[in-house]
Amino acid sequence: MTELFNLAIDVMGGDHAPAMVLDGLAIAAERHPSARFLLVGDEAQLTPLVTRCKRVQASCTIRHAPESIPSEMKPTAALRVRGSSMRIAIDAVAGGEASGVVSAGNTGALLALAKIVIKTLPGIDRPAMAAIGPSARGDVVMLDLGANVQCDARNLVEFAIMGDVFARTVLGLTAPTIGLLNVGSEELKGDERVRQAADILRASHIAPQFHGFVEGHDIAAGTTDVIVTDGFTGNVALKTGEGALKLIGDLLKQIFRSNLMARLAYLLVRPGLDRMKLWLDPRRYNGAVMLGLNGVVVKSHGGTDAEGFAHAVDVAMDMVVHRFNDRIRDGLTRIEELKTDKGGPQLLAAV
Amino acid sequence: MTELFNLAIDVMGGDHAPAMVLDGLAIAAERHPSARFLLVGDEAQLTPLVTRCKRVQASCTIRHAPESIPSEMKPTAALRVRGSSMRIAIDAVAGGEASGVVSAGNTGALLALAKIVIKTLPGIDRPAMAAIGPSARGDVVMLDLGANVQCDARNLVEFAIMGDVFARTVLGLTAPTIGLLNVGSEELKGDERVRQAADILRASHIAPQFHGFVEGHDIAAGTTDVIVTDGFTGNVALKTGEGALKLIGDLLKQIFRSNLMARLAYLLVRPGLDRMKLWLDPRRYNGAVMLGLNGVVVKSHGGTDAEGFAHAVDVAMDMVVHRFNDRIRDGLTRIEELKTDKGGPQLLAAV
Repeated sequence: MTELFNLAIDVMGGDHAPAMVLDGLAIAAERHPSARFLLVGDEAQLTPLVTRCKRVQASCTIRHAPESIPSEMKPTAALRVRGSSMRIAIDAVAGGEASGVVSAGNTGALLALAKIVIKTLPGIDRPAMAAIGPSARGDVVMLDLGANVQCDARNLVEFAIMGDVFARTVLGLTAPTIGLLNVGSEELKGDERVRQAADILRASHIAPQFHGFVEGHDIAAGTTDVIVTDGFTGNVALKTGEGALKLIGDLLKQIFRSNLMARLAYLLVRPGLDRMKLWLDPRRYNGAVMLGLNGVVVKSHGGTDAEGFAHAVDVAMDMVVHRFNDRIRDGLTRIEELKTDKGGPQLLAAV
Repeated sequence: MTELFNLAIDVMGGDHAPAMVLDGLAIAAERHPSARFLLVGDEAQLTPLVTRCKRVQASCTIRHAPESIPSEMKPTAALRVRGSSMRIAIDAVAGGEASGVVSAGNTGALLALAKIVIKTLPGIDRPAMAAIGPSARGDVVMLDLGANVQCDARNLVEFAIMGDVFARTVLGLTAPTIGLLNVGSEELKGDERVRQAADILRASHIAPQFHGFVEGHDIAAGTTDVIVTDGFTGNVALKTGEGALKLIGDLLKQIFRSNLMARLAYLLVRPGLDRMKLWLDPRRYNGAVMLGLNGVVVKSHGGTDAEGFAHAVDVAMDMVVHRFNDRIRDGLTRIEELKTDKGGPQLLAAV
């Protein structure tokens, strides 16, 4: 089947779906005027929402899905719901009708369905979840964020390759620096797994970009553009950082509301605080990407609003337009070439 | 040998040793007037510093150490320096002369020396590093912070037992709640290791305190009083949280210095900001504790000042005075009893 749509959209996923998704698409359609979207969901609910916005109406096609995946459904159960909006949207990518899919629905179900239906790229052992976050030195890409709770050295190397291409594609960097998350920056720190991954990266084509080991504080410091780690550590680090930011945000709110003087102070620094808030706004970083599949798969936060969902669509469109997967294939080929290079066989045999 | 000293102090460890350590002891000696300290270090440097403060002079005994461990020395090399201040201070604990040791020196060396010279408590497979940090609902204990980059279920269970006793001893809680760090709070999340550890804890004497799985954001939220995790994840989480706090602190500084209005605003909210700064002050949380050894071992941050070092001494004194290790032994005995209880053998056999 020929490609008809840039993105298939699971309209039924998310806390405020389908209205929030349609409002988000209205923003996205404005930003990507030539994009074509396949909207998958309950036709009866969708049709009136689509007709509310001319831009959406012009760029979208509705496909009916009789079912949807509840947010608490287990992945194994979700795999059996063949008529779900998520499944039909993913099928459109697998069938070559769409280049990618965006969903704000059940994360575990999306991961499982995408892996099984869309399948991994040749040469990729396991797909990884990546996202962008703020740092003192600009945006930072981190992966894996939870798709793989256990990883070996080979997986970490693949994540580095995918993170490199993702940072080029979405952040527009020409030679992003890459750090491998560890408990110390010295070469002998950490376990066998991270030390082996570092050895392979030092011998690979991305060696000039490989910064070596980084530590937890390097994420917010922006020491490198890409932070590579296993899904367990990445998930914990992401949420720990978010938790720390929330703690300070709540404290500042209390301080600025504590008395009349503080309220006056708030008015005086409000422009600066608003800029900081905007810069750290989780909606600006919405859209976790599942890398390593035969198609673009973006997971929006379930609780986001229209602006956040539009950002997730932006990320997916960036990946589609800049042919992310073709560039990943190139990176993988060059890592495979290590096998025939000096030093390569030993390194790769070890993993 | 009978116990003569509450604590042996490695006076030569830390960026500004020995002066910083002595200044810290002057504060600590004021707070713990009946405590006895064994100061280990270069006698020629120490004597004039000790005579500067009457309180220190009255509560301390000097023991000469001809050498000291440089901050960048590898643990394996540090083990061979028998005349180092760190080694002689640790020997005093192993020999029963002192109940504990405090050092602001090389962490890896302290860990290795303490493990080999002081040895682990019977029933403890591996010692763990614990520290206290701030949360929205009060102080939180987290362990392991890096002593063990790889842990199995049994290790995590031991960390939970030690964390429970540590929170009782140092935070004064009667029944601290315990959370096991994971990528999600549902029972099926994570790897085999954390799920097995959770099963054992649910069958143990601390089951009423066991909250189940917690996620990264629960650390700063203070969902539980104790956070248990492996040393890799704990080290990354601790540093990631610190990094996020630093990022916001730096942004706030910029905002309040950006113009005259902002400087005025700073003056108006200064009391609140100062309180927040004091509350988050790393010196208030200085003193990482190595739990599971036949003696109290506290590591002070190398870059801390006298106030921070005094806090590390406070933590060590709390543990000595409240007989931390006797209480750990009791907790371990009760976990061992699981073996003879219904359900216990299968659970413990699995790990």
